[in-house]
Amino acid sequence: MFKTRLSEAQASVQTALDARVAQYPAGQLRDAMHYALQGGKRLRAFLVLEGAAIFDIPAEQAMPAACAVEALHAYSLVHDDMPCMDNDDLRRGMPTVHVQWDEATAALAGDALQTMAFELLTDAALGEAPARLALVADLARASGAEGMVYGQALDIAAETAATPLTLEQITKLQEGKTGALIGFAARAGAVIADQDPAPLAAYAEALGLAFQIADDILDVEGNEDLTGKRLHKDAEAGKATFVSLLGLEGAKARAGELCEQAIAALEPYGERADILRDLARFTIARKH
Amino acid sequence: MFKTRLSEAQASVQTALDARVAQYPAGQLRDAMHYALQGGKRLRAFLVLEGAAIFDIPAEQAMPAACAVEALHAYSLVHDDMPCMDNDDLRRGMPTVHVQWDEATAALAGDALQTMAFELLTDAALGEAPARLALVADLARASGAEGMVYGQALDIAAETAATPLTLEQITKLQEGKTGALIGFAARAGAVIADQDPAPLAAYAEALGLAFQIADDILDVEGNEDLTGKRLHKDAEAGKATFVSLLGLEGAKARAGELCEQAIAALEPYGERADILRDLARFTIARKH
Repeated sequence: MFKTRLSEAQASVQTALDARVAQYPAGQLRDAMHYALQGGKRLRAFLVLEGAAIFDIPAEQAMPAACAVEALHAYSLVHDDMPCMDNDDLRRGMPTVHVQWDEATAALAGDALQTMAFELLTDAALGEAPARLALVADLARASGAEGMVYGQALDIAAETAATPLTLEQITKLQEGKTGALIGFAARAGAVIADQDPAPLAAYAEALGLAFQIADDILDVEGNEDLTGKRLHKDAEAGKATFVSLLGLEGAKARAGELCEQAIAALEPYGERADILRDLARFTIARKH
Repeated sequence: MFKTRLSEAQASVQTALDARVAQYPAGQLRDAMHYALQGGKRLRAFLVLEGAAIFDIPAEQAMPAACAVEALHAYSLVHDDMPCMDNDDLRRGMPTVHVQWDEATAALAGDALQTMAFELLTDAALGEAPARLALVADLARASGAEGMVYGQALDIAAETAATPLTLEQITKLQEGKTGALIGFAARAGAVIADQDPAPLAAYAEALGLAFQIADDILDVEGNEDLTGKRLHKDAEAGKATFVSLLGLEGAKARAGELCEQAIAALEPYGERADILRDLARFTIARKH
């Protein structure tokens, strides 16, 4: 059930993203945007669609928000992979955008993917203007100078800091860098339905941290063919991670606790949230 | 009258931008955003405020849109100045962001300034949700893969093209690179007031092109102390400009014609648009 729904969501989100990009003027910029939007687990889009399903919002209605969070995520990866940031040459098993083209194209494609994310949230399919505007405001808060980009800036600063980060500091960093956008994705259905997003926000807070701990574990234990990205970079760079701070077994135990917390937060929704419970379990068990 | 209103707008826009940035978490990212938002002619913000005044929209109401267009413009300058793009070390008389800090900070500050622009358009001061949402959609169209960033991509591609651009190609490029955002700024008041933006759109189309021709003339005839940026770069790079294609006198004549076209487009608004007429004249006469 879970795997089938995730596969279906991956396919429908890819179709919708490709259709939107195809409407832009042809050229290298559009090619690079299209390229950066291929593949990926689509967990953020899936969160949007399944969060929306709890409130009986059909996938067609929530789809522009699902695509928006993936476009936003793709922009952050394209810029984060650039030589002046993480300098990664491999992403989702393919050369990164600045390797495939050049740095200017990566900068511009990332810029335009961010714009595309906000544009998608103005799509009439999502519902009335106040709901769409609330999504725009929520995505801006989650992804800007107090959300994702703030976390990325803390991450860059940590690389040149004299001492490794503490557990408290790395938790704050990751709440911005990965947690904020996962929070947007989880809340989006409630925002569209004009319902209280608090249970989904609590779910996302635990899920986001579990997701990042799982990423840190994969960086140590993972397989580059399965993850499609360079691994062991954190240890080589001497960066503090949840694994370096808690140990491998400690990190796995903490991810398990957070998974249980995430599942518990969904209690108000009963069995309507079963897929989101499965998603929490998948997050910490995934191999990629 | 015109100079006084422009000075007043510059001061009030700076105050509003500084106040918004001060709400973000402290740190280098916020410092770089604040830095990138200092100075500038604020012609785009002024266009928003004066376009709004035609429809009796007070400056306080239009201010978030005026700030949004300046934040969007600032992001484009920060990224455009980076080594992988235009590689400029001077902007508004100060070191560019990547020179003052580093490239990662410039990438992130630009990213967060774009987000800030969209966030500002969700400000309740601007009016009802449909108007704010229309502004978000209009800014996304003007600044993304079919607007400003598209123009920037054409500009980058032109640098490595075998033959210089034709007048038609450079006009299309500039319609995206500078024209689209000027169009957003000019239309914003009509969008907020839910009135027909066509006259202001026609004004902006002529103004945007006149503005770019004036920039090309300044690149040849200007003073680096007054403009606060490096000049003569286009000729050194062998890039086609309106001056290289039309000659200096031809470019001046064309800018004058466009100025008259812009002024003529404002006819429906009578003397309520006198400041915008002055702005068109100022655009082609400016020394910075």
